[in-house]
This record gives sequence, structure tokens and C-alpha cells, in this order.
Amino acid sequence: MTIEELVAAARNGSTRAVGRLLSLIESDRRSEVLAVVGHHPVRTIGITGPPGAGKSTTIAVLVAAYRGQGKRVAVLAVDPSSPYSGGALLGDRIRMAAHVDDPDVLIRSVATRGHLGGLAEGVPAAIRVLGALSYDVVLIETVGVGQSEIEIAAVADPAVVVLNPGAGDAIQAAKAGLLEVADIVAINKADRDGADQTARDLHAETSAPILKIVATRNEGIAELVEAIDAHLRADDPERRAARARAQVLSLAQSALRVHPGLDGLAKRVADGELDVYSATRALLGGPDPG
Amino acid sequence: MTIEELVAAARNGSTRAVGRLLSLIESDRRSEVLAVVGHHPVRTIGITGPPGAGKSTTIAVLVAAYRGQGKRVAVLAVDPSSPYSGGALLGDRIRMAAHVDDPDVLIRSVATRGHLGGLAEGVPAAIRVLGALSYDVVLIETVGVGQSEIEIAAVADPAVVVLNPGAGDAIQAAKAGLLEVADIVAINKADRDGADQTARDLHAETSAPILKIVATRNEGIAELVEAIDAHLRADDPERRAARARAQVLSLAQSALRVHPGLDGLAKRVADGELDVYSATRALLGGPDPG
Repeated sequence: MTIEELVAAARNGSTRAVGRLLSLIESDRRSEVLAVVGHHPVRTIGITGPPGAGKSTTIAVLVAAYRGQGKRVAVLAVDPSSPYSGGALLGDRIRMAAHVDDPDVLIRSVATRGHLGGLAEGVPAAIRVLGALSYDVVLIETVGVGQSEIEIAAVADPAVVVLNPGAGDAIQAAKAGLLEVADIVAINKADRDGADQTARDLHAETSAPILKIVATRNEGIAELVEAIDAHLRADDPERRAARARAQVLSLAQSALRVHPGLDGLAKRVADGELDVYSATRALLGGPDPG
Repeated sequence: MTIEELVAAARNGSTRAVGRLLSLIESDRRSEVLAVVGHHPVRTIGITGPPGAGKSTTIAVLVAAYRGQGKRVAVLAVDPSSPYSGGALLGDRIRMAAHVDDPDVLIRSVATRGHLGGLAEGVPAAIRVLGALSYDVVLIETVGVGQSEIEIAAVADPAVVVLNPGAGDAIQAAKAGLLEVADIVAINKADRDGADQTARDLHAETSAPILKIVATRNEGIAELVEAIDAHLRADDPERRAARARAQVLSLAQSALRVHPGLDGLAKRVADGELDVYSATRALLGGPDPG
């Protein structure tokens, strides 16, 4: 099948064709796929937070809420291939089981090939393909901890940080830089002791709206959906440019890590033949350092 | 004064000239300075860890240990300009007061201009200047938390992670990626309960040597110095190349953040005129995206 035929099949409901397209954008045929699908902005919501906070459960109830509005929903799980997140993906998939037979819900994991830092290269393309295939909402879950949770802010708007009552999660989220990128904070399991105190503590750390939810009982989800909608209504060219800027920087970092000249330059720096600044300029396409 | 004169004055003991050279490498005259000072490898030890772990106290006793060996020591404090670390630098300076009148000890902070991620641009150059000025040891302390603590591994060898007994610090260090970059782990305040258990927990997470120290009482510091020496003796071209690679990548990231073409490319991506991959290629010196 040509890419045009795959897109047509995907638009006619073939989940196999969707999967094939999402695989092609991880290959050297990415630009072909992007040229065919064009530019179809799609609302992209990031869900991140410490392990165990209830990200997957929150996503499951958000999927249900958007399906209730008749929207088609895609979930991308970004797997940072971290030793700390091993196995989590399977558990997340099981929790999403309620939706796996719904043809209007797509669940897909995106590999990150062990990148430390840098946006998973396939994510912006996957979002564009999903937009072209008439998905109305893309939910991106970052599994595990670390840099990928921050990078998510480059593609998602809003970035929703899910955490639990108690000082531990709040401090951890602050330290990981999550509160700096949070557009909305959802305190999940808010029926537990300390939720109000956690909300007060967080108000001192972030100007983002702070909501209390109990995802397993669907409590506070309507309010979360409304907060997401309000954030989307407030989007403007400046915010879009800031996200694009972060995406470009992040993809550049990922590309430089696999640059064919990098190892040779590094060896010359290590041997004292070249200073690290000249090597950096050479890596960035400057003149041959000689 | 010319740069040659400044270097001569600095070598003759003028701390003012040293300060001037370290300021010049933060300016557009960096390459001039580097050309004059040449390549003088210097042992560079990174000290990082969670806030309150005792990094500054550990550095103070390490400085005393190296001074006892007759070595000249420089301390660079990397300030990530984070809201979470505000004011910490002053406190660190006070704790270093025992050494401020010693002409063979230099204490200097390096600005990072609020970069989120990316090696502080001046750090590799500062290390080279200090090597050229006959400092025998450079200790780099990262103040605060976040990406800069990981980037330190690109310039420091070994990277020493200082933390306290108890699960909190160990978990936090693991989550922040510190254990992945640790060459040596020092459990400070090891006279407190739980130090042995923390050491056992850490052995499961890292293959780095784990030492117990009480920096305020100088306990375990001789062993820490020996562990640092052993690590340095084991250095090899492969490790040096890996550090150079990480430095080049990190400086490239810092440079791209201030690239003059970035904002224009980001705006075109945000407006749907350009896809983010073409913009990334253009940023990296590829063909004009048209």
C-alpha cells in the first residue's frame, strides 16, 4: 500500500493502517508520511506525575469523559526505557482495558530508545498523524520519571500533573521540575487525609489551577475536563510559539546525540587536540575545526 | 592588560588576575583566553546531591585534605539560578570561610543564566584556565537540584554524590538520575541511624563504591580521598572520550537555546507553515527550509 492508501484506509477505520502509519513515522519515511497527512492541529493533553499517583486511572476516566462527548481519543504512552519504569507499561495497558475494544479509542506506546533527555523523536509526528486521522483528543502519558516528563510540556497543552495528598509527591514534583511545567495540577486520591494541606502547599509553588479528584470514583473529572477546556480556550500564538520552540530544541538535542561526527570530535577533545567549544561549533555545522 | 599579561599575573599569585580571566571566559573573548592558556588537564571532582546533604561541608573538608597534601585547590560553585536554590550560595560561602584567606584556595561561583538543562557554558573553560594557573584540583559543587547535577558528570571525574542516611535521600537521588552518574557515593552524617541500611539499599541501585562519612568530624574523609584517587588512576581514553562527548552535546544544547534563528523557526512551526522536523534540520545548519 502507498502512504496515500494507508491514510485512506486509516480514515475508513482500519486500526491496522493507523498502526502502520505510526510505525512509518518512526522510520526514514517520516517526512513522506507528514507530507501526505498535512497539518491538522489536535488538542494534545499531557498527563504526568510521580509513579503511583494514578496517571493511568486518570487517563482512563478522561477517555471515558471525552467518549461521552462523542470525541475520538488517542492515548500515547511515552516509555522512557528507564530501569525505574520497567514493566509499568503493561500495567497501564491493563488499566486501560475498558477502552481497548472501542474503535474510537487508540492506545499506543511510543519508544524513546533510551534517550536521556530530549523529546522522543516520534511524538510530534505521531500527534500530527492522529490529528489527520480525525482523532479529536490526544492524551500523552509519560511513564516513569525524569526528563521525559518535562519534555512533554513541549507537545502537550495543557500539561496536567497528577499527584497524591501528602508532602512526598508535592516535593518530588517540585524537585523534578514538574511544577514549573504544570498548566493544571490534579491532586488524585483527594479523599485521603491531607489533600487540603497539599493544595495549600502547592498554591505556594505554582500559579496553575489545583483540582482535587478521585479518579477511581470519577470525582472531580468534570471539573478537570472543564479546566482543560478553559486552558485550551486561552491558547494564543505566543504559547504555541513557545511550545514549538521547545519541540525544536528537544528534537535537535535528540538528533545531535546520534550525529555521525560526534564521536570523532569527542575523541579529539579528549586527546587535547581540539577545545570543546570548537568541537561544539563543528557539531553545529560550523567550519571544519582543522 | 593583555591576556598574556593577565595569565602571567595570575601565575604570580594575583587573585585579581584570576578573577579577571574567569570573567573573560564568560565574554566573547573566551577563545582568545583559551588559546593563550593551552591544554593542561587538571583533576576535576564533582560534588552533587540533594539539598542539605552536606555537600559544602564535604567540600570544605576535602579542600583541607588536599591543602594538607600541599595541593592548590579551586572550588567552582555552579548556580542553576533556580528558585529552589535561592540564597544557598551565600550559605555555602560562609561554610567555606575557613579557606577564604588561603591564597592557594580559590572559591568562585559560575553563573548559569537560568538555563534549564545544558552544561553552564563557562564551566569547561573555567576548568582549563584553572589548570593552566597550576591549580592541582578543581572541586565543582552543584547548588540546588535538577539537570545541572547530572551535567556535572560531563566535566567532573569522579562525580561524587553526597546524601544522608534514610530512604528519602536515596530515593530522591535515584529519581533525579544522580545514581546513574555517580562514580562514588558518600553517605554523609553516617553516625545517624540507618546508614548501614541506606548503604545496602544503594548497593542494589549502583555499582559505584559507597562510603560512610561524617564530614563535620572529618570521619571517612581519608577514605573518600583515596576512593577519588583510585577512580582517577583508573581513568582511560574511553572514559575521557565519553566525558568529552557529553560536554559537546551539553554545550550544543546551550548554544541552540540562544540561536538567532530559533524564534523565527518556532513561529513558522506554530503557524503550521513548517513542520517541526524541517525546523530542527534548519536549526542544525541544514538547507534553508524555504
